Amino acid sequence: MTRHRVWRLPGDVDTDALAPGTWMQHGVDVIAQHCLEALRPDFAGGVQPGDVVVAGPNFGIGSSREQAAAVLRHLGVAAVIAPSYAGLFFRNAFNLGLLLLTCEQCERIAEGERIAFDARAGTVTRPGGETLQAQTIPAFLLDMVDAGGLLPQLQQRFQTRTAP
Amino acid sequence: MTRHRVWRLPGDVDTDALAPGTWMQHGVDVIAQHCLEALRPDFAGGVQPGDVVVAGPNFGIGSSREQAAAVLRHLGVAAVIAPSYAGLFFRNAFNLGLLLLTCEQCERIAEGERIAFDARAGTVTRPGGETLQAQTIPAFLLDMVDAGGLLPQLQQRFQTRTAP
Repeated sequence: MTRHRVWRLPGDVDTDALAPGTWMQHGVDVIAQHCLEALRPDFAGGVQPGDVVVAGPNFGIGSSREQAAAVLRHLGVAAVIAPSYAGLFFRNAFNLGLLLLTCEQCERIAEGERIAFDARAGTVTRPGGETLQAQTIPAFLLDMVDAGGLLPQLQQRFQTRTAP
Repeated sequence: MTRHRVWRLPGDVDTDALAPGTWMQHGVDVIAQHCLEALRPDFAGGVQPGDVVVAGPNFGIGSSREQAAAVLRHLGVAAVIAPSYAGLFFRNAFNLGLLLLTCEQCERIAEGERIAFDARAGTVTRPGGETLQAQTIPAFLLDMVDAGGLLPQLQQRFQTRTAP
């Protein structure tokens, strides 16, 4: 089972912390370099593909800017795990191919822990073997995330259908 | 400005309260008759088209069953107003044409109040004139709700495009 290194964040992380307003006129690659700089200045430079973000409640509150989810995916974040999300952030994230796990007990998880998760089973496993329950996500949404998001999934479908 | 009668609910209203498991083998019209019966037995019989639900945080937690949003729309609920929603419920609701307003201060609103709201401006107005801020929702999502949800909107678009 793949292990993922944890970046621990507090509750109420807003979209301006994820995609700072100062950089919004730039592309996702530039905004990503400033992701969470006010909260965790070590994040954008230190995060590795496959790492996960574990946060407190109301992750992604604030504006509806899609870049807030896009930068986490651009940086290779494998999943965000939090007890709750802002509705618009949740919607954007899955459309953009960023997996969000809703897990009430995730606040037990510590910075730097290496955890495993199974999105289809709805489980998060801590280093000592403790298993936390996450909300089950419908298969069609997980398929969309696996495809890289809504648009890549639609492109794949139409290509398959029109292939000779 | 249209006024909407308020049905006041607590926090953590789950999808099983909205669409009780006992009735899930039936259609939305039958499930709707049992909507919230464990929490507000007067709701399903008393709610009028145009009424609004004002609830506490985490509205729609629990399973991902779409009927939880579908029954509120079937009963003519004009909007749900709450400080926060479960992510999957939020996603389902807009797809099914049910408007959700995210409003931190909505807990001030009382049972039976007649309130107004402007989804495009992101405001909720109480009888005395007090205006509460709601999170701004992108226009394309409000257009989808106005069209009755994702599928009706797509149907309209394709009809328009293929019309002679």
